Amino acid sequence: MEYCFAFHNSHINQYRSPFGAVAVGTNVNLKILVDKGVEAYLNLINFIGEESVVKMSWEGDSGNRTLFSTKLDTLNLIGMNRYYFSLKKDDKYFFYGNNESALGGEGRIYYENPIPYQITVYEESYIPEWFQEGIIYQIFADRFYNGNKDGKINSRKKNSFIYGSWNDEPMYIRDNKGSIIRWDFYGGNLRGVIEKLPYLEELGVTILYFNPIFESASSHKYDVGDYEKIDSMLGDEDDFKELCSRAEKHGIKVILDGVFSHIGADSKYFNKFGNYESLGAYQSKESPYYSWFRFKEYPDSYDCWWGFDNQPNVDELNPSYLNYIVTGKESIVSKWLKLGASGWRLDVADELPDEFIKLLKKRIREVNPESILVGEVWEDASNKISYSERREYLFGRELDSVTNYPFRESILKYAKGEINGAEFISRVYSLYENYPRDNFYNTMNLLGNHDTQRLFTILEEDISLLRFAIAIQMTFPGVPLIYYGDEVGLIGGLDPSNRKPYPWEKENKEVYDIYRKLIMLRKSNDILLKGDFDIYQGENDLVIVKRMYKNKSILIILNNTEEDKYIRIKENNNYKLRDIISGEVLVGDDKKKYNVKVKKKGYKILQED
Amino acid sequence: MEYCFAFHNSHINQYRSPFGAVAVGTNVNLKILVDKGVEAYLNLINFIGEESVVKMSWEGDSGNRTLFSTKLDTLNLIGMNRYYFSLKKDDKYFFYGNNESALGGEGRIYYENPIPYQITVYEESYIPEWFQEGIIYQIFADRFYNGNKDGKINSRKKNSFIYGSWNDEPMYIRDNKGSIIRWDFYGGNLRGVIEKLPYLEELGVTILYFNPIFESASSHKYDVGDYEKIDSMLGDEDDFKELCSRAEKHGIKVILDGVFSHIGADSKYFNKFGNYESLGAYQSKESPYYSWFRFKEYPDSYDCWWGFDNQPNVDELNPSYLNYIVTGKESIVSKWLKLGASGWRLDVADELPDEFIKLLKKRIREVNPESILVGEVWEDASNKISYSERREYLFGRELDSVTNYPFRESILKYAKGEINGAEFISRVYSLYENYPRDNFYNTMNLLGNHDTQRLFTILEEDISLLRFAIAIQMTFPGVPLIYYGDEVGLIGGLDPSNRKPYPWEKENKEVYDIYRKLIMLRKSNDILLKGDFDIYQGENDLVIVKRMYKNKSILIILNNTEEDKYIRIKENNNYKLRDIISGEVLVGDDKKKYNVKVKKKGYKILQED
Repeated sequence: MEYCFAFHNSHINQYRSPFGAVAVGTNVNLKILVDKGVEAYLNLINFIGEESVVKMSWEGDSGNRTLFSTKLDTLNLIGMNRYYFSLKKDDKYFFYGNNESALGGEGRIYYENPIPYQITVYEESYIPEWFQEGIIYQIFADRFYNGNKDGKINSRKKNSFIYGSWNDEPMYIRDNKGSIIRWDFYGGNLRGVIEKLPYLEELGVTILYFNPIFESASSHKYDVGDYEKIDSMLGDEDDFKELCSRAEKHGIKVILDGVFSHIGADSKYFNKFGNYESLGAYQSKESPYYSWFRFKEYPDSYDCWWGFDNQPNVDELNPSYLNYIVTGKESIVSKWLKLGASGWRLDVADELPDEFIKLLKKRIREVNPESILVGEVWEDASNKISYSERREYLFGRELDSVTNYPFRESILKYAKGEINGAEFISRVYSLYENYPRDNFYNTMNLLGNHDTQRLFTILEEDISLLRFAIAIQMTFPGVPLIYYGDEVGLIGGLDPSNRKPYPWEKENKEVYDIYRKLIMLRKSNDILLKGDFDIYQGENDLVIVKRMYKNKSILIILNNTEEDKYIRIKENNNYKLRDIISGEVLVGDDKKKYNVKVKKKGYKILQED
Repeated sequence: MEYCFAFHNSHINQYRSPFGAVAVGTNVNLKILVDKGVEAYLNLINFIGEESVVKMSWEGDSGNRTLFSTKLDTLNLIGMNRYYFSLKKDDKYFFYGNNESALGGEGRIYYENPIPYQITVYEESYIPEWFQEGIIYQIFADRFYNGNKDGKINSRKKNSFIYGSWNDEPMYIRDNKGSIIRWDFYGGNLRGVIEKLPYLEELGVTILYFNPIFESASSHKYDVGDYEKIDSMLGDEDDFKELCSRAEKHGIKVILDGVFSHIGADSKYFNKFGNYESLGAYQSKESPYYSWFRFKEYPDSYDCWWGFDNQPNVDELNPSYLNYIVTGKESIVSKWLKLGASGWRLDVADELPDEFIKLLKKRIREVNPESILVGEVWEDASNKISYSERREYLFGRELDSVTNYPFRESILKYAKGEINGAEFISRVYSLYENYPRDNFYNTMNLLGNHDTQRLFTILEEDISLLRFAIAIQMTFPGVPLIYYGDEVGLIGGLDPSNRKPYPWEKENKEVYDIYRKLIMLRKSNDILLKGDFDIYQGENDLVIVKRMYKNKSILIILNNTEEDKYIRIKENNNYKLRDIISGEVLVGDDKKKYNVKVKKKGYKILQED
């Protein structure tokens, strides 16, 4: 079969510049090197899927190769665009596209159906600094701490169960068919969080992200019953205000979980069980909430979230709903910001229309210009497709941050040795390339949460692996998130055992020390908080990360293998590297082949002074 | 086939006298009327099953019949003895025995295997009067009332659940295989009972019988963990003492549930789960409790109650166990009597050796001569066979009282019309005949408890049937027992829904009024409390019960049919009957065919002044 040589690498400045996602209006230079005699075309698939072709310009020859270039004007390209190259050789067409893992970098020749490269174009937007510089602590409020004297449980719910003791193993109470028939509570509450603010400050936390805290029937509270009320088991509006104002004094901001794609069937709005005094959509078509829902057959058949009939979906763009949640003067998102919250995390952002997210973003910034919007997205948010549509999350008018599950997966696989350094770098680099720079530095970097197994459990309770993973989390760009209890070695598999109560007085101190030291390292170091990022492969499969800020830099060298490894960092003797952890200083010595040892499943953090 | 005429009726004085069970040493005259020319023999099967035959004496002829008699000396016959007659006619043998339902009264000819009559011989014994004259209220302590301020739950157990609200529907929390994996509690306690003593006194209660209240893992507490302690969720020893002394001031005595045939696996004695500090039998053969249990293969295979491995059986006659529970100076049965209890109800008396029961009875009378012993027996306790052995419950040295399930069944069937008046009378009469008189007047007459469906539920919430059933319960001999909540119409099927919490502030007042009035009627009337008993069939399938005390009598006329019925009580005009309920006075009037109307599913209570 005839072959055509070609080369393009989206990571190399000579072939694509500037690197990565670009602000709208930026001209992007794209180049490709091909066999002499070939004609090169750039195929652009814009954000709405329209494809156009431009002939590329001859830039120069070199031996038997020719370099072609094109300048891409991005003024009308806000969104996720893709490109590949068509190459005409002797009346035959070849294509050059992204590599098969679609991670960017060097691509390959295709005879048909090339995988395109991605080029993200965004509007410049403001993200408040406090977020990027923060340390997030995620709290499942029923399971964190009960702040009442004597362990009294606030306002117990009908037809529910309270665990006999704080350290009971969580479980679901199901019927024969597996449906949950009674919800289970430990009795943690907002007063408990208030009492533990000194603990959180000591740990280094600056942001509290709460799983939902509004009135609802379940313990997880993703089935909201009343957006206007704090669940009475957790406290009340005054407790919430006090929490926010006292947290502020500890340098801590509060982010709430907004569940806006669906509502509890047992709610003020739907009122399927008549537990509310309102006239619910389930009860009458005259209900003021009737238009919010999508009934197939009234009232028992309705669109609901993943088929769970206790969580009917809403039509988010219904004017009445939109007004209530977002745009109205006294809207829900506005109310809670005014009472002290500093931002929202949008549950299942996948299921929210782009327009809804944009309006919500606009509204919260009107109320508080320093507020933040995070979206729950499980994949690369820059090219996510949900319900057959490309999603607009990170193009400037939408989310400030997204849950960084891809990074989590990369760290865990890398720590466990399931992928090597090169693969880890590719995966990280792809996010780095695809995400607008500000978003990349503001991702919500979780290693575990209420939807995953506990971090320490995934790492088989291996303290070295845990230290390794947290070191990556705390030195990379993105805002580290600690799921309550992870910092003291809480273990547990999938739901419900990932929602055990915080083990007060049974903390794993060794784990705590690891967390606290690495958090302090990050917080005390602007280079780690704000510095530029680069990542590349060193000798012996080591990964080298470089962070740079105001002419200072830090190198993080990672060894995920089962052997101690050695590396020579610099080729000349004009350097001095200080090991941030040990304090040891390495000085230039040209005679040494290696000058840095990185232990198995270990890391070195070196500051270039 | 050749036939032989014969007649004997155990209810008729002429054929058997004295009637029914007799005190030891009493001579019983037994007679049978047969065809002339027949020879009659009495076959006696004594209490241990030995059969002997005596030739009966000729008493006289009448037409073509001959009457034979024998005097039975009962001096050596303490226990349940049986008899039938052998009849020799023309060298052929016929037999005369009990009727096929074995209820006593008129019998029949058998050609083989006659069903014998029963004749109970007992030692005279003392039963304290307070019991016979009492009204028992049965309390499942977790479900009655929480006496703590704010509804605080005492001392919650690890790995258990507390119901979210007092009125939640009870349920078991089971795994896939149906095993209970967490116990469920409402948080009722002894302080709650103390607070409700005025309520109980007002209702007319004079005896509280508690389901087990000693420390244990479960909510039912039939798996005792420590016989020496009140379960900490229910309170402590001081609460118990206070309960008994304050109850006494309200005229109320306390009876405890003694579960002595098995012990909790999770106990101080067995300690399967290491929850106790003691060295349990499961943990070591050196345990001081090792000899109490029967291991098949140590330690995991052991004899247990109905196969439930959380309730290992004990060897009740093991000297160490016997000493601990019964005979020791500080034995369990003695300890709690000294602290204020007035008696014990023995759980599963079937499973306790006769000797154990006798020793226990002896011991409690030493500690408190006025104490009472009740046994849980589901059938006629005078002839109960369990584990292939005749049981000795009611022969003077054993139980004072037994749970009267046969009477319960008769009342319910009669009330619902499933049996007619004649059948009801036979069933009642059989107990009357078989039980020693004092025991008959002291049976624990329950209409429902923690092991049955709720009374009101069985009666399909028909208030007329309920009134009818309670009227029988409150006018017959035997001590009426009210299962907490029955007096306010609490409904529920089998376990767990027969163990719902008492519905404070949701009481059915109509039901309460029925109970209270009938209780007051009984308590204010010595004839009903202590009077002799007779029962016979009236016209129109009506049942007539006569109670007599000190030359005064009360007639209770029962109509379980679906039609109003009329009856003529007396044949002459020298009487005056006062309807106790309405106050109406009936006077003799020979001209009236009927003078008493009893409504369908109704009753009349008439006092002969």
